Amino acid sequence: MNMPDKVEVIEVGMRDGLQMEPDFVDTGTKIALIDGLTDAGLRHIEATSFVSPRAVPQLADAADVLAGVRRPAGSRFSVLAPNLKGVERAIDAGADEIVVFVSASESHNRKNLNRPIDRSLDDISNIAEHVRHVGIGKRGAIACAFGCPFEGDVELSAIQRIAGHFHAAGFRTLTLGDTTGMATPALVARTVAAIRGAHPDMKLTLHFHNTRGIGLVNVVAGLNAGVDSYESSLGGLGGCPFAPGASGNICTEDLVYLLNEMGIETGIDLDKLIQVAARMEAVLGRRLPGQVMKAGPRLRLHEYEDAACATG
Amino acid sequence: MNMPDKVEVIEVGMRDGLQMEPDFVDTGTKIALIDGLTDAGLRHIEATSFVSPRAVPQLADAADVLAGVRRPAGSRFSVLAPNLKGVERAIDAGADEIVVFVSASESHNRKNLNRPIDRSLDDISNIAEHVRHVGIGKRGAIACAFGCPFEGDVELSAIQRIAGHFHAAGFRTLTLGDTTGMATPALVARTVAAIRGAHPDMKLTLHFHNTRGIGLVNVVAGLNAGVDSYESSLGGLGGCPFAPGASGNICTEDLVYLLNEMGIETGIDLDKLIQVAARMEAVLGRRLPGQVMKAGPRLRLHEYEDAACATG
Repeated sequence: MNMPDKVEVIEVGMRDGLQMEPDFVDTGTKIALIDGLTDAGLRHIEATSFVSPRAVPQLADAADVLAGVRRPAGSRFSVLAPNLKGVERAIDAGADEIVVFVSASESHNRKNLNRPIDRSLDDISNIAEHVRHVGIGKRGAIACAFGCPFEGDVELSAIQRIAGHFHAAGFRTLTLGDTTGMATPALVARTVAAIRGAHPDMKLTLHFHNTRGIGLVNVVAGLNAGVDSYESSLGGLGGCPFAPGASGNICTEDLVYLLNEMGIETGIDLDKLIQVAARMEAVLGRRLPGQVMKAGPRLRLHEYEDAACATG
Repeated sequence: MNMPDKVEVIEVGMRDGLQMEPDFVDTGTKIALIDGLTDAGLRHIEATSFVSPRAVPQLADAADVLAGVRRPAGSRFSVLAPNLKGVERAIDAGADEIVVFVSASESHNRKNLNRPIDRSLDDISNIAEHVRHVGIGKRGAIACAFGCPFEGDVELSAIQRIAGHFHAAGFRTLTLGDTTGMATPALVARTVAAIRGAHPDMKLTLHFHNTRGIGLVNVVAGLNAGVDSYESSLGGLGGCPFAPGASGNICTEDLVYLLNEMGIETGIDLDKLIQVAARMEAVLGRRLPGQVMKAGPRLRLHEYEDAACATG
C-alpha cells in the first residue's frame, strides 16, 4: 500500500459539468461559484473551455470568467483547449494551465474532435512547440481511457502510445479520463501501473464518472495505486449522453467526505463546499446527484424529539 | 487479502425499501416483483416484515406475500420480526428465517423499538427460546452499527455487547446495519475484526446505505475484510428520514455490477435484475437512484451514427 496522505482535488464542474447545461449561466454567476470554490479551499479549478462558442455556447464567456475570478495565492486555473486557436485564446486570457486531450478510441476521437487520433497526436506536438516559451502549464488528458461507448474495451497499448506521445512532447502531468463511466478497480490498477512503469516522472490525475455507481470505488483503487490527484464535479454536475438520467462526474463533496473519513488531507472545507453546491442547485433549479450535500457529514446529528424512525 | 471469490447478495428492497413508500403496492405486484428477483437468480430475499400493520401499513399483507411467491430450490425468504408476536406470525406464514434486531444506540433503539436496549436483549433471549424447536432460521441484526443519527459514533463495546448476546442466544448469523449511512471503510474494518475476533463462528452480513455516496466503497472495505454477504435494495429503493432526497440502501444492480467487474461470483443475471428494477420504477412511478439500470453494463455499446458527444 502506498496510499497518499494528501490528495489534490481538481474541480471540473464549471467545465465538464456546465458544458452540458442548455440554459446559459450568466458570467457573474459563474464567477461567484468559482470564487465560492476557492473560498472553500479548492486550489485547482478547471474553470472553462476555449472551444468554439458555436459548439458550446455555455462556455462562450471563457475569457470573461477567467478575467473575473479571484485568484488567491497558490491557486491554479486550468482550461480545456482543443486546438491551437483555443490555446492562443487561453494564453491571452491568462490561464495557468491548458488541458489538451485525445481519446484512446479512434471512433470517439473522430466523434469528439473530428479527426483521427494520429492527427490529434500531431496537434499535441504543435501545441507543445507553440507554448514552449510561454509561461503556461500544460496537462495532457486521455479520454475514454477505461473504455469507449462505441468500441468497448480499449487496448492498453493504445493508452500507452498516447501517454508516450504526451511524454515525448514534454507533458509531465496526465489525466486519465473515464469519459463514460466504464472504469473498474482492476482497470484502474492495470492502467496506472502501465503508465507509471513507462514514465515514472509523469504525474497522474484520475477523472472518474459515476455513470455506473462505482466512481468512488475507482478512486479508492487509484489511492491504493498511490495516485494523489482526482478530478470531480461540484454536486456531481454533469452527465453522459449515453446514459440518460445517470450521474456524471463523481461528486466533489462526496469525494472530499470520503477522503476526510479516510484521514487523507485535501485542504478543503467540506461545509463551505456544500454551500457552494447548494448555490449551484439553486442556479440550475434542480437537484444534483451529490449525496453529502443532502445528508451532511456523518456527525451532523439530529434532534431526538423531532425524529421519525422507520421500523427496522 | 482474503477477498471472497463468491458473495451472497440479500435483497432487502421489498422490506427496507417498500416500508417507506406511502402508497400501498398491491400484493400481486409485490409477488410478481419477488418472483422476478428469484428468476434473476437472487436466492436470499428479505421479503417483508411482521411488524404491526398499523405502524407499517405497506407491509400489512406480509403473510399473503409469503404465501404467494414461488420458492425455487435453494431459495431463502427472511422476514423482519420485531417481537414475539411478529415471530409467531412469521412462523405461521412459513418464513425460512426471522430477522431480529436491536440498535447499537440507546436513543435509536428507544425511538425505533420503543424500549431500552436491555429490554431488547431480553426479547432476543425469549425469541431464541421460543423458536428453539421450530424449524426456522434466525438472524440477528444490529441497527446503527456504524453510527447513530442522534448520538454520533457508537462505541465498539456497545456493538460487541449486543453481538455477544446474540451469540449466547444461539444466533450464528449477524447483520451489521448502517441504518443512516454513517459507515466508513475504517469503521467497517475495525468492527468486522472485533466481532470476528470474539466470535469466529458468527457469519457476518453487511447492510450499507448510500446516504453519503460511499456505500459501495464500504462494500469493498467489507470484501477486503473477507465478508461474503451483503444486503442491498432493488434500484436503490429506500431512503433515510434524516436525509431528505438522499439515497437509501445501496443498489442491488450496482452492487452486482461491481462484484461482476471484480470477478466475484453472485449467481445473479444482471440483465434480468435490471428488468425487475425497471418494473419497480414503473410501479412506483418515479426514477430510482440505481445507476446501472440507467447506463447498462459497461460493454453495452452504442451506435456511432446516432451519438452526440460533448466536447471534452
